[in-house]
Amino acid sequence: MDTPDPRLADGRQSPTAAAVQRGVCRLLRASGFATVTELVLATGRRVDVIALNDKGDIWIVEIKSSLADLRADRKWPEYWEYCDRLFFAVPDDFPMETLPGEAGHIVADGFGADIVRHIDEQRLAAARRKAVTLRFARAAALRLHGLHDPHADGLEQPGFYEPGKPFQA
Amino acid sequence: MDTPDPRLADGRQSPTAAAVQRGVCRLLRASGFATVTELVLATGRRVDVIALNDKGDIWIVEIKSSLADLRADRKWPEYWEYCDRLFFAVPDDFPMETLPGEAGHIVADGFGADIVRHIDEQRLAAARRKAVTLRFARAAALRLHGLHDPHADGLEQPGFYEPGKPFQA
Repeated sequence: MDTPDPRLADGRQSPTAAAVQRGVCRLLRASGFATVTELVLATGRRVDVIALNDKGDIWIVEIKSSLADLRADRKWPEYWEYCDRLFFAVPDDFPMETLPGEAGHIVADGFGADIVRHIDEQRLAAARRKAVTLRFARAAALRLHGLHDPHADGLEQPGFYEPGKPFQA
Repeated sequence: MDTPDPRLADGRQSPTAAAVQRGVCRLLRASGFATVTELVLATGRRVDVIALNDKGDIWIVEIKSSLADLRADRKWPEYWEYCDRLFFAVPDDFPMETLPGEAGHIVADGFGADIVRHIDEQRLAAARRKAVTLRFARAAALRLHGLHDPHADGLEQPGFYEPGKPFQA
């Protein structure tokens, strides 16, 4: 966790952002939330962390690894349309006074995180909650399936599907 | 995929059941469904495969690797309370005439599967659909998180959480 780097051009995270993400997901899990990272919303925007508890509450956490990263993002208020609570999560050397007050604030490293500024709920409408929950569910399950069966997406390849061939684990 | 074995006592699957599960999940994915295996329902019963498409439809597939496996299960009709469509999935040497007509039938091996008997929908009520979707979503996300961060569940261990320690990827 040295100098904060911007997101890499190919969409991979900086080491700082990866560490913050890990700590955030641990905090959320300990708070009763299941998390999905890098979820693409209906708008095409990709949220860093989205979380769902057993009451169906949805939180979104947007990771900012540097001040430049925060300043480059003018669209973050849109995330309020997809969650009940919105947070920024930053590393501990981030200039906290620059974070907008219209979201909660989380400080995180690769081992854990703390909510340092809470934010009131703005409850989603039922139809939107249903749509976001469905998107969350399918993304998590499809990724998990892809890890268990890396060929699951390749069935359109000619010759791959061979029903008569014996199963090999 | 030799002689069908019963489920192992520790809950692990026989090779036949594992092959059928893999083929079923591929079929469902190709049909627009995301799948979760071994999902524990509110009743405590564990469904072999549960699937969710982008319209929110929920299907359950119960795997039977042998006739003994089918005959040992008297509670399968309860699954209709948790899905819109219920199927049995079996290997291709299964005596198909013994399968109950109150569910669809799928024949599968480790490479793919086919629906050989369709079944009409019995649509879930909205509240039940919401509850099952939430359970599906959280199970998938928690498992995926556990694979990405195997220590995420161990944070209660003394000394594990060390905020001052530098992050190591």
